[in-house]
Amino acid sequence: MHTDLVAALDIGGTKIAGALVDSSGRIVLRGQRPTPAQESGESVMRAVEAVLAELTSSVLWPAVRAIGIGSAGPVDASAGTVSPVNIPGWRGFPLVDGVRQLTGALPVELVGDGVAIAAAEHWQGAAKGHDNALCMVVSTGVGGGLVLGGALHSGPTGNAGHIGHISVDLDGDPCPCGARGCVERIASGPNITRRALAEGWRPAGDAEPTAAAVAAAAEAGDPVAAASFVRAARALAAGIAATATLVEIDIAVIGGGVAKSGEVLFGPLRTALQEYATLSFVRGLSVAPARMGTDAGLVGAAAAALGGAPREASVIG
Amino acid sequence: MHTDLVAALDIGGTKIAGALVDSSGRIVLRGQRPTPAQESGESVMRAVEAVLAELTSSVLWPAVRAIGIGSAGPVDASAGTVSPVNIPGWRGFPLVDGVRQLTGALPVELVGDGVAIAAAEHWQGAAKGHDNALCMVVSTGVGGGLVLGGALHSGPTGNAGHIGHISVDLDGDPCPCGARGCVERIASGPNITRRALAEGWRPAGDAEPTAAAVAAAAEAGDPVAAASFVRAARALAAGIAATATLVEIDIAVIGGGVAKSGEVLFGPLRTALQEYATLSFVRGLSVAPARMGTDAGLVGAAAAALGGAPREASVIG
Repeated sequence: MHTDLVAALDIGGTKIAGALVDSSGRIVLRGQRPTPAQESGESVMRAVEAVLAELTSSVLWPAVRAIGIGSAGPVDASAGTVSPVNIPGWRGFPLVDGVRQLTGALPVELVGDGVAIAAAEHWQGAAKGHDNALCMVVSTGVGGGLVLGGALHSGPTGNAGHIGHISVDLDGDPCPCGARGCVERIASGPNITRRALAEGWRPAGDAEPTAAAVAAAAEAGDPVAAASFVRAARALAAGIAATATLVEIDIAVIGGGVAKSGEVLFGPLRTALQEYATLSFVRGLSVAPARMGTDAGLVGAAAAALGGAPREASVIG
Repeated sequence: MHTDLVAALDIGGTKIAGALVDSSGRIVLRGQRPTPAQESGESVMRAVEAVLAELTSSVLWPAVRAIGIGSAGPVDASAGTVSPVNIPGWRGFPLVDGVRQLTGALPVELVGDGVAIAAAEHWQGAAKGHDNALCMVVSTGVGGGLVLGGALHSGPTGNAGHIGHISVDLDGDPCPCGARGCVERIASGPNITRRALAEGWRPAGDAEPTAAAVAAAAEAGDPVAAASFVRAARALAAGIAATATLVEIDIAVIGGGVAKSGEVLFGPLRTALQEYATLSFVRGLSVAPARMGTDAGLVGAAAAALGGAPREASVIG
């Protein structure tokens, strides 16, 4: 049995998950509660407390050396607060203080959920062995995190890597964030579906109009469905190329529901990257599907608590 | 007299400058040659040798502990080679080896010129005291460099911070780099002038059509001239906001000829930043004119050789 463990919390709009994670990244104990996202901030915190209680009551708890929290954003790691867009009861909510009160003197590390996923992919997944990587989630929204110089780059407030809200079309459609032409506004699942519907695509039978249905139609040869994926791929490529040009990365890892579309997305993405990643030092950039599954948030929160991917993992690859 | 010195080289398409720089960033000796940019690679290297000879022959030379080189890009710091766009004789030219042969066992650090300027502004200029900063040059081209977590982020090949070639308009005009809608393609001096001319602006009398002339016209109330600066400002704002959203910076420092236009540029830039820098953790971003003058490249090359801005400088401010 490993002597040192890390406690991890993954806070989302749907569920709050917790785990004890060993130094090899294996989950040895789990807890979970639905997020009472439409209730008061206190109710949401009680769900966190219930998850934590399952961990702290374990015989393994004395081996815990640190706590990592990955939370839906925005977060403020410097203040220890979170304001998840889809948990309205939490605005500037002092989550780190709340967790500290339940766990004593252990160090607590808070990062955004995109940063946590990057930490997980770097430790155990598709970015393993890459010292400079962008890891993204493309689903209902578009998020991400960065590994730079072999270490997680979370930024002073824990929000770095927010690629979904960089503008790649400065005159483009207004984004709910307030800007225009953001990567998310073009490439998220709902926007892929919206664009296909607007251009005349309809789901087969009485199926729901989802990005997965658009992907299936594109694969079956529907040109409107395929064009919506091409447009998403071009926005992602412009954003990935911008990231590489700004900070030098050699791989972009893409997960989330839209990435499950496979070559319908990755084919046009590789083509578009050749158009936008043009300077000598970014031309070698590769893209790869994410490898971590639904535990990425927990494993990544643990990795963040360990100070990014542990060194022995980052030099293997 | 300071005992420790750094030798700095600033390699550009017009001149090759060298200096000995003390630990407070003061230049204590200089050398300079015109760049024979249209001659052979060997001729260009002979100019570097001549500049270095002025430094190595000094009685101060024994106090030199390291050599920093800032070069027009692209560079490849990992290979020690440079391929400056405007020095055709140098393509993958082994500059670091060449300098090593003339200077013995001293450590040599190579970075791109944008990175060098960021190092200078962080050490002595407008980014002093800022642990997370983007420093840009907006003139004939648009370049830049990054300071992250208090240290220079030059990237594995020394090219990080290349903000001029991120696309902020994915369907925009083709850029000479091969991509479309790059920040430089919209915001550089020649592009500000080109756009004003295309929209009907003409310089007064028989003056040259330059970005400075467009700026003067804008200041005098010419709406076409002002609109061209607004367009440049919006592209710069989208690029700066993208950088802040990706890596978290709290200041963008802008130098170069176009930045000398003052409020004609900075006014619309601050307005546009409010539109594009929307997430909570980037809303506090400020912009400031560069403070370093023509010695920025030399001082920055020295700072890069010292491993970014020296720690004692980065905590003051």
